[in-house]
Amino acid sequence: MMKSVLTTALLGLGLISSQAPAADPMPSWNAGPARQSVISFVEKVTRAGSPALVPPAERIAVFDNDGTLWCEQPVPVQLYFVLDRIKALAPQHPEWKTKEPFASLIKGDVNAAFAGGEKAVMEIMMAAHAGMSTDEFDQIVTDWIGKARHPKTGRLYTEMVYQPMLEVLAYLRANGFKTFIVSGGGIEFMRPWAERVYGIPPEQVVGSSIKTRFEMRNGKPVLMRLPEVNFVDDKGGKPVGIGQHIGRRPIAAFGNSTGDQQMLEYTQAGGGARFELLVLHDDAAREYAYGPVMGMPEPKIGAFTQALYDQAKKSGWTVVSMKTDWKTIFTK
Amino acid sequence: MMKSVLTTALLGLGLISSQAPAADPMPSWNAGPARQSVISFVEKVTRAGSPALVPPAERIAVFDNDGTLWCEQPVPVQLYFVLDRIKALAPQHPEWKTKEPFASLIKGDVNAAFAGGEKAVMEIMMAAHAGMSTDEFDQIVTDWIGKARHPKTGRLYTEMVYQPMLEVLAYLRANGFKTFIVSGGGIEFMRPWAERVYGIPPEQVVGSSIKTRFEMRNGKPVLMRLPEVNFVDDKGGKPVGIGQHIGRRPIAAFGNSTGDQQMLEYTQAGGGARFELLVLHDDAAREYAYGPVMGMPEPKIGAFTQALYDQAKKSGWTVVSMKTDWKTIFTK
Repeated sequence: MMKSVLTTALLGLGLISSQAPAADPMPSWNAGPARQSVISFVEKVTRAGSPALVPPAERIAVFDNDGTLWCEQPVPVQLYFVLDRIKALAPQHPEWKTKEPFASLIKGDVNAAFAGGEKAVMEIMMAAHAGMSTDEFDQIVTDWIGKARHPKTGRLYTEMVYQPMLEVLAYLRANGFKTFIVSGGGIEFMRPWAERVYGIPPEQVVGSSIKTRFEMRNGKPVLMRLPEVNFVDDKGGKPVGIGQHIGRRPIAAFGNSTGDQQMLEYTQAGGGARFELLVLHDDAAREYAYGPVMGMPEPKIGAFTQALYDQAKKSGWTVVSMKTDWKTIFTK
Repeated sequence: MMKSVLTTALLGLGLISSQAPAADPMPSWNAGPARQSVISFVEKVTRAGSPALVPPAERIAVFDNDGTLWCEQPVPVQLYFVLDRIKALAPQHPEWKTKEPFASLIKGDVNAAFAGGEKAVMEIMMAAHAGMSTDEFDQIVTDWIGKARHPKTGRLYTEMVYQPMLEVLAYLRANGFKTFIVSGGGIEFMRPWAERVYGIPPEQVVGSSIKTRFEMRNGKPVLMRLPEVNFVDDKGGKPVGIGQHIGRRPIAAFGNSTGDQQMLEYTQAGGGARFELLVLHDDAAREYAYGPVMGMPEPKIGAFTQALYDQAKKSGWTVVSMKTDWKTIFTK
């Protein structure tokens, strides 16, 4: 026992090295160029003596969330949260029975509700997300994510995260990387569960946000959530969000759609070794198929267009086929 | 040698404990209630078995910068940067010779330049801070901070950081804390040197900011700095900035002025053990004296008012007397 503790201690400090080959850091990945590209990059920027060695402080990796770390079909998870929240709030808002877009939404006619365009969308989003303190919103999300279930699989949404991507997150962190989420989704919608599910703490989550205001409420200082957009963290907004929150150009970026294009471009344009990866959803049997190589019409959400596919190939970005490259899709 | 390596390894892992008393983590502090309050708090939230134990992930400590980590007199350092930058840009702007507020500024009459009020201040700030990419601004700040010197001491500004506060930062980090700057100063003005000087990486710096935009410039993706305020990280803005960037209520907050009041209130209002500290500038001989207990008129900047002093005493916040509590003021 003591010998094993000593060995562990010395291994941990890098004072001795194990004779046995290291365990596979990505067991849910099939062998192939996608898996190999991740491992080659990590070895290149971390191996002592490598000409492309990157100091640990600069090992920043950014991950889109919807469609990259968890399932975004048939619609992004946050939309189910919004619908459930409007239903839960309806009894306090009798006027919604006759007022659009809420009347249609409560009747379950989402298409009619969103027919009002951007104004209707904003009204719904603000009703669902504003009007409470940040602490209260954290609790609302925590309660919801702990019980809401995917309409097709009946699983918790947090069970529909991609096991192969969890392995990439852990592998990068084991190699001194700091991992961030950079998502178009709400920053305060992800933070309550991102640490438990992805091992990513709140301060490493970047997302879209509404404004907040410091207030004394019943003598206690709180941040109140206001019905006003603060920042949209999508497309060209992703590099802006990275600049605001991280202040350093990432060396690795992972996405799955045109919303991630600028983030990958921005990452690649830095000096030294860089890595970019897109997840292609081409597995109708185990998840959903909505990528360009399936010959499908461009999807309304999570658009991995033919143009993006062509850009990826031309730019040397890794494209992961969920069908071919992943042994397992979801966490157990 | 091998024995010493083993001992180090096991000590590092907490598998054995040293018999010798630990080295003083705060050697630049005189014994007294201020020093003791820091140590008591850290021990309370980190000692195994303590009823107030805080998990490492929640050990968030936030520090104001101007007047808390480095000298802010006779005016905040960033103002010297602005003045030098306007002078450097003047040859490219011949129209400034006759156009206020620049004409006065170039002549060295700062008071006349700022007589135009907020509009004049904004014009000057934007001319100094916007119009370049974030990478270019990083280089401009790096060049400036490497050579600009304090008007009274002739020392580099980065040599006028407070040694006792560096010790607090290191002591907290050695005890599993994540340390953040939360400053009214420009976020991109601090990031280029905060890691080298304070050990605080860019992603743990929160500050005021201007907007940026993702752009392709000569085929290369950059973030361009726009002449438009994005966020003011002062007073009630500090808790808002903490919410945006950290997403978690700190358990310890350090400041020196009314600009930090709300940050300390917000920190204190969380559950469990909390710690708040204000630095009182009462040492005219070794730094500057501009605190309320000196019976001086309230200063225009870095206002540690009598009301704040009274609030600190009533709320149980630690007030550090630089004169009495600190053996050394500046780093060597």
